[in-house]
Amino acid sequence: MLSVMLNMIRQQSETDPQFMKENMFVAVMDNIFLLVLVTLLSVVQNVFFALKVEKECTGQQSKHNSAAFERLSCANRNCMDTYPTFLAVLWCAGICLSQAPAAFAGIIYLVVRQKYFVGYLGQTCQSTPGFLFGKRVLFFLSLMCVVGIINHLMLTYGGSDYKEYTQTITKAASTLLLLP
Amino acid sequence: MLSVMLNMIRQQSETDPQFMKENMFVAVMDNIFLLVLVTLLSVVQNVFFALKVEKECTGQQSKHNSAAFERLSCANRNCMDTYPTFLAVLWCAGICLSQAPAAFAGIIYLVVRQKYFVGYLGQTCQSTPGFLFGKRVLFFLSLMCVVGIINHLMLTYGGSDYKEYTQTITKAASTLLLLP
Amino acid sequence: MLSVMLNMIRQQSETDPQFMKENMFVAVMDNIFLLVLVTLLSVVQNVFFALKVEKECTGQQSKHNSAAFERLSCANRNCMDTYPTFLAVLWCAGICLSQAPAAFAGIIYLVVRQKYFVGYLGQTCQSTPGFLFGKRVLFFLSLMCVVGIINHLMLTYGGSDYKEYTQTITKAASTLLLLP
Repeated sequence: MLSVMLNMIRQQSETDPQFMKENMFVAVMDNIFLLVLVTLLSVVQNVFFALKVEKECTGQQSKHNSAAFERLSCANRNCMDTYPTFLAVLWCAGICLSQAPAAFAGIIYLVVRQKYFVGYLGQTCQSTPGFLFGKRVLFFLSLMCVVGIINHLMLTYGGSDYKEYTQTITKAASTLLLLP
Repeated sequence: MLSVMLNMIRQQSETDPQFMKENMFVAVMDNIFLLVLVTLLSVVQNVFFALKVEKECTGQQSKHNSAAFERLSCANRNCMDTYPTFLAVLWCAGICLSQAPAAFAGIIYLVVRQKYFVGYLGQTCQSTPGFLFGKRVLFFLSLMCVVGIINHLMLTYGGSDYKEYTQTITKAASTLLLLP
Repeated sequence: MLSVMLNMIRQQSETDPQFMKENMFVAVMDNIFLLVLVTLLSVVQNVFFALKVEKECTGQQSKHNSAAFERLSCANRNCMDTYPTFLAVLWCAGICLSQAPAAFAGIIYLVVRQKYFVGYLGQTCQSTPGFLFGKRVLFFLSLMCVVGIINHLMLTYGGSDYKEYTQTITKAASTLLLLP
C-alpha cells in the first residue's frame, strides 16, 4: 500500500511539475524575501554612491576641486571592493541559518556604509582609515554561516537538531550589533 | 486516514531524501537555467574585457600609447564596478518573479555593456561619460524584484495571487527595453 | 482515488508549509554546504588581503615605501576584480551539476590566488603579469555549467538523463586541475 502510494506521488510529481514548483516557489520566497529586500536596498545605495561620484566628476571639470573627487572616488571604490563579499556572506548566512537576523545585520551594514561614505564626503579627518568598515557585521554573518553548517552536519551525521535553539540565540545576538 | 497518509509521506521524504532531491533539482533547474546561461555569457564577456586590457597592457610597454590603456582600463573598471550589482539584481528578479524576462533584460544589459566598452575603445568623444550605463535595465530588474516581493506578501497575507498577471505584464514590458 | 489523495497532499502542503520547508531546507543544505564553506574561505582570504593592504597603507606613511604599497594594492584590485566572476561561476557550476567538484575547483582557485598575491608581495619579477590567474579553474567551472545546462535540456526535451555519468566524469576530471 505504501509503495503504491509513493509511486503515485512520484508519478504525480513527475507528470505535474507545476504542483512541485508552486509549493516550492512559496517556500523559497518565504525564506529569502527579506534578503531580496536588503539586496535591493544595497543596490539603491550603490546607485546613490555612483550618482554622487558622477555628479562630482562632471562638476569637477568646471571647478577643478580634484581633492573632493579623489576622496569620493576612493570611498566609492572601497565600498564597491567589499560589496561582493558582503552579498556572498549575507546570502549564505540567510540561507544556512535564518533570514531575519541576516537581513537585520545587512541593514546595519548598509547604515555603517552610508556613514562611512558621508564621512568621506566631509573633511578628511572624519574618514575611516581602513578598508574594512563593518568588520563586526561581516564577522557576525560569517559566524552565522559556520553555525548553520555545523548544525547541518550534526543533523546529518548525529541526528540531533539544534536549529531552533541556534536561531533563537542568533536573533538575540543580532541585537548586540546595535551597540556602538 | 489523512494523518496516516501524511505521516507516511513525511517518513518517506525523510527516509528517502533522494526522492525529494531529484524532483527539487529538476524544478530548480527549470527556474534558473536561463539565468545561468546569461551569467555564463557575462563571464565570457568579462574574460573578453580582461583579455583586451591585458593585450593593451603588454602592447603598451613597446609602443607607449598610455592614453589608450588608461581609457581601456577605466572602461573595464566601470564595467567591473557595476557587475556585482547587475548579478544580484538579475538573480533576485529571476527568482522572485519569472526568469524569462529577467534573462532577456540581462542579455540587453550585456549588449549595452559591450557597446559601452567598444565606445571607450574608439575615440574619447564616443565614450559615455557616466558610471551607470544600462540604468534602464537595472531599473526594470529592480522593479521586477519589488513586484515579486509585493506579490509574495499579498499571497501570504491577503490570499490573492496575481503572479500570472504580473508575469504576463512583465513579459510584455520587457520588450519595451528594446526601444533605443 | 488518486486525485483525492493528490488533493489532500496539495491541501496538506498548503496548510502546513512547515512540512515542505523543513524537507526542502535539508535537501538544499545537502546540495550547497560545500559551496558555502568555499565561499566562507574566500571571504576570509579577502579579509586577509584587505588587512595586508591596510597594514602596508598605514606603514607607508612613516616609511614612504610607495612601490610596495602600489604593488600590493594592484594585486588586491586584480583579485577583487575577478572575485564576483569566480563566485558566480562557482555557484552556477555547483548548482547545475554537482557541488563536490565545484568546491574542489574553488579551493584550488583560492590556492592559486594566494600564490598570486604572495608572488606580488615579493619581487616584481615574481608577479604574474596577467589579469586572469586561475584561467584553467574558471574554464573548468564554466564547462561544468554548460554540461549541466545541456544535461537539463536533454532531460526535459529528450527524456534521457546522463547526470550520473557526467557527475562521475566531472569528479574524475577535477583531479586534472591538480596538474601544474
